[in-house]
Amino acid sequence: MTYAELTAQIPRKQSFLCVGLDPDLKKIPSHLKGKQNAVVEFNRSIVEATADVAVAYKPNLAFYEAMGTIGWEALKATANFIHERYPDTLLIADAKRSDIGNTAEKYAKSVFEDMPFDAVTLSPYMGSDTIKPFLAYPKKWVIVLALTSNPSASDLQTQGVPPFYKRVLYTASKWADKERLMFVAGATHPRMLAEIREIVPHHFLLVPGIGAQGGSLEKLAEAGLNKNAGLLVNASRSIIYAGNKSNYAEKARQSAYRLQQQMQHLLLRADIT
Amino acid sequence: MTYAELTAQIPRKQSFLCVGLDPDLKKIPSHLKGKQNAVVEFNRSIVEATADVAVAYKPNLAFYEAMGTIGWEALKATANFIHERYPDTLLIADAKRSDIGNTAEKYAKSVFEDMPFDAVTLSPYMGSDTIKPFLAYPKKWVIVLALTSNPSASDLQTQGVPPFYKRVLYTASKWADKERLMFVAGATHPRMLAEIREIVPHHFLLVPGIGAQGGSLEKLAEAGLNKNAGLLVNASRSIIYAGNKSNYAEKARQSAYRLQQQMQHLLLRADIT
Repeated sequence: MTYAELTAQIPRKQSFLCVGLDPDLKKIPSHLKGKQNAVVEFNRSIVEATADVAVAYKPNLAFYEAMGTIGWEALKATANFIHERYPDTLLIADAKRSDIGNTAEKYAKSVFEDMPFDAVTLSPYMGSDTIKPFLAYPKKWVIVLALTSNPSASDLQTQGVPPFYKRVLYTASKWADKERLMFVAGATHPRMLAEIREIVPHHFLLVPGIGAQGGSLEKLAEAGLNKNAGLLVNASRSIIYAGNKSNYAEKARQSAYRLQQQMQHLLLRADIT
Repeated sequence: MTYAELTAQIPRKQSFLCVGLDPDLKKIPSHLKGKQNAVVEFNRSIVEATADVAVAYKPNLAFYEAMGTIGWEALKATANFIHERYPDTLLIADAKRSDIGNTAEKYAKSVFEDMPFDAVTLSPYMGSDTIKPFLAYPKKWVIVLALTSNPSASDLQTQGVPPFYKRVLYTASKWADKERLMFVAGATHPRMLAEIREIVPHHFLLVPGIGAQGGSLEKLAEAGLNKNAGLLVNASRSIIYAGNKSNYAEKARQSAYRLQQQMQHLLLRADIT
């Protein structure tokens, strides 16, 4: 997916919502449990119910790997379904991978050839070698962790002068331009989000931490929107587990729609139409 | 596996060798290609040929994920084989994972419940939240990236005052003691390895970069050995692709044995018997 294709979606859907598809067999509605394709069916219903208000979907690979081979098959089936049915949405593999060149090539093959993901999240710690094999795929994106939304982000990311997450921004923004590279920037730190936006004014920021993790959408929009929006805000649990009965998809839609309505307001206010 | 069980192996085998099981379908011997269980058969032969001189095996998950579901099954079959047949060897999932708490729990379930790994490599960038779920499993190990052996390690790890990899050592060594936590420390930097050993005198160091990546075994032993050895030195390609014909296992054994002979010499010289 190109930058133009991604940015065109945002005013069209009046949304910069990314839906995290992190299915947990313990939490999916009971009428699905025990079905052979429970996870795929769950994901499909969520996607069908939210596709007009979501610009991206982001399965986190951990939730699938924890189920072993069946989970890996469910991930692939989910990715194939979204890619075929909703090719205009950005499909993100939340993998946070990191490894040396010849190994990174294998991870790239997994997400970009064996599966049809448009983008992958990567850890920057090992440097550019670990990122470049993913950039060898035209029209595919890398999303580099800068500042994460978990409490222990402060163990290392905010240490040092300048803080390490700023070094990551300065360094990694040279690896690729805004057409191919985004950064993960946690919503729990709106002040830091503004500083991030100063360092990388043009790159998209993928922002976790809304919903279950508690960040404010309004504050992060003020800090993070650029003229093409430049934000993808992710919500996972607050959408996919909005309901746990047979109407879970409708509940998910309502939850996603509420976020989209707020985003519409924020986009209009920022004159992004 | 406990610290005592791990350290007991080293004088017994006169070795601190870890064999990386990174099978590439393009590189495995031609007589195996096309067989349904080619990867598992390849791994099994390598393990059987080297188990008396190796104290650890380390499949890198990327090589399996790149093959899709079949690869995931091969990884699990390989891990099960090693765990059942050679329970005294340390079985390391080279995953370099990193994610927030509820997600890290899923990765931990994958490597420690769905599969029988003893240890997993993890990226420190997101802090302690991402490590603790793995430490909830008794007798399992985490191996935290400190200084890696790839050229672009200097993009970020060696930046800052003190350099970021030292911050990782100071911070992460508080997350768990030498009984549960190791560090990855690249062999391409013997001087830095000595500095690492000063900061974490007691923790095991997993050292990649011997063989295909070019580090010197003698220099790293001088810099890194402690009184229980405290080193696991990994070689992957130089062992598993030592031969590419029907005698590949014998060639792998010869390559592993040459390293073990050097290690024996270095252990005796350091009075680790």
